[in-house]
Amino acid sequence: MQAGRELVSVMLPRDHGGGIDAAVARWGGTRDNWLDLSTGINPVPYPLPEFTAADWNDLPDQAAQDALIRAARDFWQVPEGAAILAAPGASALIARIPALMPAGIVDIPAPTYNEHAAAFAAQGWAFGNSAPDARVLVHPNNPTGKRWQAEDVDAPLVVIDESFCDVCPDDSLVHLADQPGRIVLKSFGKFWGLAGMRLGFAIATPDTIAKLNALSGPWAVSGPALRTGAAALQDHSWAADTRARLSKDSDRLDALMAAKGARVVGGTTLFRLYDVPDAAKWQEQLAEHHIWTRVFPYSETFLRLGLPAPDRLGQLENALTTMEAGA
Amino acid sequence: MQAGRELVSVMLPRDHGGGIDAAVARWGGTRDNWLDLSTGINPVPYPLPEFTAADWNDLPDQAAQDALIRAARDFWQVPEGAAILAAPGASALIARIPALMPAGIVDIPAPTYNEHAAAFAAQGWAFGNSAPDARVLVHPNNPTGKRWQAEDVDAPLVVIDESFCDVCPDDSLVHLADQPGRIVLKSFGKFWGLAGMRLGFAIATPDTIAKLNALSGPWAVSGPALRTGAAALQDHSWAADTRARLSKDSDRLDALMAAKGARVVGGTTLFRLYDVPDAAKWQEQLAEHHIWTRVFPYSETFLRLGLPAPDRLGQLENALTTMEAGA
Repeated sequence: MQAGRELVSVMLPRDHGGGIDAAVARWGGTRDNWLDLSTGINPVPYPLPEFTAADWNDLPDQAAQDALIRAARDFWQVPEGAAILAAPGASALIARIPALMPAGIVDIPAPTYNEHAAAFAAQGWAFGNSAPDARVLVHPNNPTGKRWQAEDVDAPLVVIDESFCDVCPDDSLVHLADQPGRIVLKSFGKFWGLAGMRLGFAIATPDTIAKLNALSGPWAVSGPALRTGAAALQDHSWAADTRARLSKDSDRLDALMAAKGARVVGGTTLFRLYDVPDAAKWQEQLAEHHIWTRVFPYSETFLRLGLPAPDRLGQLENALTTMEAGA
Repeated sequence: MQAGRELVSVMLPRDHGGGIDAAVARWGGTRDNWLDLSTGINPVPYPLPEFTAADWNDLPDQAAQDALIRAARDFWQVPEGAAILAAPGASALIARIPALMPAGIVDIPAPTYNEHAAAFAAQGWAFGNSAPDARVLVHPNNPTGKRWQAEDVDAPLVVIDESFCDVCPDDSLVHLADQPGRIVLKSFGKFWGLAGMRLGFAIATPDTIAKLNALSGPWAVSGPALRTGAAALQDHSWAADTRARLSKDSDRLDALMAAKGARVVGGTTLFRLYDVPDAAKWQEQLAEHHIWTRVFPYSETFLRLGLPAPDRLGQLENALTTMEAGA
């Protein structure tokens, strides 16, 4: 069984949110009664459409792909000179982007989402911030929430990861996507709350999109994801309502955490980053109440919380009250 | 709108089965009344399990991935020294395999499935059969049905594409997958009839799987595909029943076509390859009856038909009768 064990280590992702199954195994309970705040995924997902048998059974056809791309172009106001590639998750695109050009020096301002660095390293890139060949800007940044400006987009290749930008569309840098060497990434799973469906997008010049497509193969996106994505990206009112709800709920979350002494460092309305005296201890105490949060290997004080669904906020409130009583 | 047009051409797959939407546009009717025999997809799919909200909403967790890999290892009798990577379709793996080693000479015996050559070409490989660095064996071959032998697996890198091998598991060369430089591909969409779900596997040494995984990124497979795949790969009796039904149905299809003068060239029980005097004319005549078949740019006489579902065989029989009457 040596091979089986090796495989598991191969497939384990780097330090990430998620991993709720490991938390359940350690602290008990059932997955359903755990409140998973370890990710930045909207807890009130876009409602699934009715799927047809053909969505599941047939190779996804060109008409369904075209409908998704048209909806994406309109929703994100993609410039006419830019093309769009749909993929089974932004992660799949992140893994392939470093193969677009010969390995060089990449600047990835830290701290940030760690799959970018892993992908560039796997393709032989080195890291540095002096005249880099490539730069990765997670915009807004995860976990700090930092926004970047157009003047930061100044290396030959710049990846602008807008996975969390659908809560603040006015900040988007998508208008730069028709310029050579700029790739804007969009994630469907986070804002629309359907991370298990696997859908993400790259927006760049047609030449860059053609190269990424060659690395991806045909029929990259599932039939159900094509249908859901096209419906969701045409539903501007759902998006507007969701932005308003997330904004209100993140204010409520901040108030609860501030009352317990946590200081808001940043974030977006999909996740909040707090500074606490001992983040590992906070994580453990909340885990005892079956609430799973995110800490980071590079900080002893950063604690990141995704938003609870409105009907689960009470579970967090109760846990925080009990923590205080026991302190 | 120039960019939009360019994008569509980028995303159009090479000459393939499928494309039923284009056929409907040309010959009329509705998609539901068309009988699509242009692919090799089992028309009686594995029944979908009940999905949980977490399957759609959450990042796929390690336990779900492990369950799928365990089921795959058992179903295909994967050797202990080999590891397994799940991907959103065999196509995604085919696109990435040529990046595993420096571009050299690849031997891809023709005719065969054309995505392999496209993927190697995109990575700068040249084609030749004299002491090649890599070889691709589609096993059984598509469209001829040719089976390869272990002694054909004799280049430094050999891709054994067993996308259609689940109808003839005794022919599988998966026992070679623990040897360096051998990659066995499996497709979930074809035998289990769920091509829109996007699920496929690579089986190779742990070292090769680790490299392919780095090119794929985490959470490659959707939550619904993880659940369905794990259930289906544990359901050995469904697989046995399906093999028996496909065998019976392909005999019936051969009999119908032989009665019309078509000669069986080869195939598998998921698709049949026939030799007819004028394949393009046959395709058009069947399309007039809203039956879509497959012809090939390299042959004027090859006509490939997937299997009709048992309750749709009559539609083909009627069309063939009418064609005869009108001839």
